[in-house]
Amino acid sequence: MAKTIVQKYGGTSVGDTTKIKNVANRIKSYFDNGDNVAVVVSAMGHTTDILVDLAEQITDNPPKRELDMLLSTGEQVSVALLAMALESIGVPAKSFTGFQIKMMTDGNHSNAKIDSIDRTRIDHAFSERKVAIIAGFQGIDKDENITTLGRGGSDTTAVAIAAALGADECEIYTDVNGVYTTDPNKVPEAKMLDQITYEEMLELASLGAGVLHSRSVELAMNYGVTIHVRSSFHREPGTLVVSEDKIMEKMKVSGVTVKNDQARVTIPDVKDQPGIAAELFTALSAKDIIVDVIVQSSPRDGVNTISFTISKKDVPTTKLVIEDLKKKLSSGALEIDDDIAILSAVGVGMKSHVGVAAQMFQALATEGVNILMISTSEIKISCVIPQSKSKQGVQAIHSAFGLGN
Amino acid sequence: MAKTIVQKYGGTSVGDTTKIKNVANRIKSYFDNGDNVAVVVSAMGHTTDILVDLAEQITDNPPKRELDMLLSTGEQVSVALLAMALESIGVPAKSFTGFQIKMMTDGNHSNAKIDSIDRTRIDHAFSERKVAIIAGFQGIDKDENITTLGRGGSDTTAVAIAAALGADECEIYTDVNGVYTTDPNKVPEAKMLDQITYEEMLELASLGAGVLHSRSVELAMNYGVTIHVRSSFHREPGTLVVSEDKIMEKMKVSGVTVKNDQARVTIPDVKDQPGIAAELFTALSAKDIIVDVIVQSSPRDGVNTISFTISKKDVPTTKLVIEDLKKKLSSGALEIDDDIAILSAVGVGMKSHVGVAAQMFQALATEGVNILMISTSEIKISCVIPQSKSKQGVQAIHSAFGLGN
Repeated sequence: MAKTIVQKYGGTSVGDTTKIKNVANRIKSYFDNGDNVAVVVSAMGHTTDILVDLAEQITDNPPKRELDMLLSTGEQVSVALLAMALESIGVPAKSFTGFQIKMMTDGNHSNAKIDSIDRTRIDHAFSERKVAIIAGFQGIDKDENITTLGRGGSDTTAVAIAAALGADECEIYTDVNGVYTTDPNKVPEAKMLDQITYEEMLELASLGAGVLHSRSVELAMNYGVTIHVRSSFHREPGTLVVSEDKIMEKMKVSGVTVKNDQARVTIPDVKDQPGIAAELFTALSAKDIIVDVIVQSSPRDGVNTISFTISKKDVPTTKLVIEDLKKKLSSGALEIDDDIAILSAVGVGMKSHVGVAAQMFQALATEGVNILMISTSEIKISCVIPQSKSKQGVQAIHSAFGLGN
Repeated sequence: MAKTIVQKYGGTSVGDTTKIKNVANRIKSYFDNGDNVAVVVSAMGHTTDILVDLAEQITDNPPKRELDMLLSTGEQVSVALLAMALESIGVPAKSFTGFQIKMMTDGNHSNAKIDSIDRTRIDHAFSERKVAIIAGFQGIDKDENITTLGRGGSDTTAVAIAAALGADECEIYTDVNGVYTTDPNKVPEAKMLDQITYEEMLELASLGAGVLHSRSVELAMNYGVTIHVRSSFHREPGTLVVSEDKIMEKMKVSGVTVKNDQARVTIPDVKDQPGIAAELFTALSAKDIIVDVIVQSSPRDGVNTISFTISKKDVPTTKLVIEDLKKKLSSGALEIDDDIAILSAVGVGMKSHVGVAAQMFQALATEGVNILMISTSEIKISCVIPQSKSKQGVQAIHSAFGLGN
């Protein structure tokens, strides 16, 4: 029986018409094997930026419905051109927009969630021995308004298509070879991983490893779709993102990440009273401020110290929010250190190996890196350190866990 | 009761974001009157050319379905930006693609015909006191494939919307003031017409007067929609295109047109046999060659002379077609004069006035212009003349019928 293959090509892979032709040639080799091929495509290169710029020339605050109407054209251009490129090399192909495959989403414009997909038209394309080319990033709500899925939306589209078609694997083509133990641009010893679990990938994604967006990984995890992150520039396999039970040898640590340009905010003398922390973080999230590590000391003399990290750019807004809450919150003076980084080690093996945290702290101590905050979860340990030591710190941890070549 | 106004803005009227803002301001003045406003928009300036160029970088022969998928994005960008521009000046607006208003067409990609429109969403926008912004040029077929309407498609969309909404008038905004008695760039005395009949407009459109496409005029005639051709650069009224019974004083001649770069093909000694002419013109139309004036002499000695005009660029293909038919067709040598022009005078008044043709021939004779072929219809007289005399000829006829200022 014919296999069903789902592939996703990002904006850099379809950056110009020459690259689109290359992608078509790659697809042809799968099609010629006799497999059913569904391809999800992003907008070409900088198309989205150009469209956003047009909108900004009109208004600072475009209605989100209209922005989705505008941005969804980028992917529509890509699917049409890719279908043409395939047809021109003798591969029958048919392109589809979100509305044509009934990619139903909620009505949350610019960040919609997928509810369902109708596979009828894709199946029909397969039955005609055609490649189905599907516009990523876009859907429609129940009133047929065009919606977009937000950052990483095309990855999410691809995984959702793979789930709907019952495909075993979803190939995500990108401009890197796969998922690395750490950023290879910063740490030359970084090694590509053959496999990684969904959980680890989620932690790495949320830590900004940047290859896959969390939502696509969550969706893949829910539907048991294996994601294959690989390069569109060569034919070598990349990294498989799979469920934990498919990985025999769990690594203690699979990856190390660093997040620079963070700030640590410390509020001393916070009254030890129920609801105080909730009020603070609700107020911050109302301003779209993402808080990463949160540490609260044990109460002493009826007061706590609350520390948390935010992105450096959010410091001014955070100050205003805390100023507003000042009377309720604290009697102490706010301290802000905006020269910090967060190092994290991620690995499902941590669950069964003891001493991973200690090993990490020791590696940093040996390099003379002072740890300002610590936060741990089941498969992640994060340390807040001075930004000046971040490169040194990553290298020390990477090597301590034997991740290099 | 609120009036319903339908407006269409062409590509030059929405050529950049500044022009889009100007269009928004114009729409606002209608909206502020309390009227229901539906606006049809074309793609911005050269967007369509840019998209076609992308397709040509991929293949010389793109599948028409995919070309429609590609080109329809141009109008989608325009409607989103115009809706944003309206919202930014406090005018609530909602944009719609062809599929969202169920602009149903046949499946004839790149030249589809409109079957029906569902006015529900437009009415709903009106009931919310919103301007409805509709993507011109595009529709969907019964399988929800995106189709486009071909040349002048946005005009056709606008008239179809006006018909569906029962609007009295459809305003077509363009970069000229209205419809002129002849090309004002070539004849300075050309005068703008206040009114013109559908029939006259159809003859002028098919003669290349260029302001309105024939299909939109036909549709307007069928549904009794008055078209108002006017400039988007000022507020002066333009030309109304109406039914004959709305015009009190019919002019003998309303407009004079010239078509340059034509060729006259003469086939002598064609056997006087049923089906010969049909075979010839079927073969030509199979090669997409548009034949304009056709003249056949009365048979003499069992043979005819057939002359017809084509566009100069079609001469080589026409030669090949006739070569193929040579044995069946004729024993004589093909004659081609590729240095001719066609002058036409159009006016519904011709139907009730005698001597119009004579007046036209006299005007040309006085200027020493030799007439090579003559063809007449109920409201049009066309003369084929040497191209070198075309400017002189137009001016003579224009002045003979008192069309100048």
